[in-house]
Order: sequence, then structure tokens, then C-alpha cells
Amino acid sequence: MVSEPSDSTPQETNPIEHLDDTVHQRVRLAILTIANESRKVEFRFLQENLGLTAGNLSQHIRILEEAGLINVQKGTEGRRPRTWVSITKAGRAALRREISVLKALVSRVEGAKGS
Amino acid sequence: MVSEPSDSTPQETNPIEHLDDTVHQRVRLAILTIANESRKVEFRFLQENLGLTAGNLSQHIRILEEAGLINVQKGTEGRRPRTWVSITKAGRAALRREISVLKALVSRVEGAKGS
Repeated sequence: MVSEPSDSTPQETNPIEHLDDTVHQRVRLAILTIANESRKVEFRFLQENLGLTAGNLSQHIRILEEAGLINVQKGTEGRRPRTWVSITKAGRAALRREISVLKALVSRVEGAKGS
Repeated sequence: MVSEPSDSTPQETNPIEHLDDTVHQRVRLAILTIANESRKVEFRFLQENLGLTAGNLSQHIRILEEAGLINVQKGTEGRRPRTWVSITKAGRAALRREISVLKALVSRVEGAKGS
């Protein structure tokens, strides 16, 4: 005989089992989302778009770079130093995985509406 | 005359503008998702389901409780101490908001596929 739970329990799957915090964290999710929309994106553009301090943005960019999800390229435009961010193949794959987990989560929460 | 950007820029909206880290953080999102599925849920159930240490889970529960998104009720069942978690009205509303932002994000990323 198989033991069974003595009372009814909620749906027994872990909704975040496949959510990777490297990608799920809100600022990093935004960086990947924006970087995924063009070949490369300027640091200052991200900073203004996301309303972050340079230090905070740098910290998240470093985490994504160390995970191999983005490439960072430093250069100049005229005399101004510029930093460009581009998403890697692994970054696109990680974003796709995150989106697929989020879709499952959305379905689960919307399915629970009546309960 | 209105000044315009000199080169094309990616979609200019902040994808995480309405993502609240209190709810978006992966463990807290999971707690709210599970709590949303039943009237109340036991601490130990959450702990086993999410694979967390008691200390880690407690920390996230405290943040959700302080934000008014869950209620925590302590009691006993037989001689064993039990802690029950239930989602509040504000918690359900916050989860709904998060889900609506996630849906917009999913559409945005899936729409960018071809770029």
C-alpha cells in the first residue's frame, strides 16, 4: 500500500523549481529583455530606461556577464567613453527558459482563480 | 521642433516598471502562488514543497506578512506546533498585478523573436 496524505493538499508542484534567480531577478530580467531586442545596447540607455544608478546597473551587468549571458564591450564614441551590452546565445536561451516558466506560472495562477 | 533620437533605439518602455520585488522575488512568488490555491497552507508544506530551510522560508514569510500580503497564524495540531499561512485580499491583488505584468513581459519577449 502506498501512503497518502491524510488531508487534501494544494497542487504539489514547486512553481519556481525551474526559475533561475540569475535571470528572474527583476533588473536582470529587464536587461536581458531589452538586450534581446537589438544587436547591442548602450549602458546609458539601460540606465535611463530602467531608472537605475550606474553602480546598481553595473552590479547586475557583472552578474549576467559572469554567467555568460551577456557580453560587455568598452569603447569610445567621439571622445566619450561608452559601454555596450549584447546578449549571448546562452543569454537568449536562458531568457527563453525563463519565459516558458513564467507562462506556466501565469496559467497556474489564472487556473486557480475559482478556488 | 521636437528633438528626436538620432538613431533607432529599442522599444522604449521599461519592462519592469510595475514589477514589485516584494512579489516578484522567486521564493515569495511561489509562496503567494501556493497560498492562493487554498484557504491556508502549512509552513512545513511550503518548506518541503519549495525545498527551503526553515530560516530562509521564515525570512520571506516575514517580508510578505509585513507587506500585508499574507497572514500568519500559529497554533498546535495534537502536540505539534504548527504555523499556517493564508493569503490576504491585498496578497491576491498583488499576485494578480504581478501576473498581468508577467503576461505583458512574455508577449514583449515573444514578439521580439524575429529581431
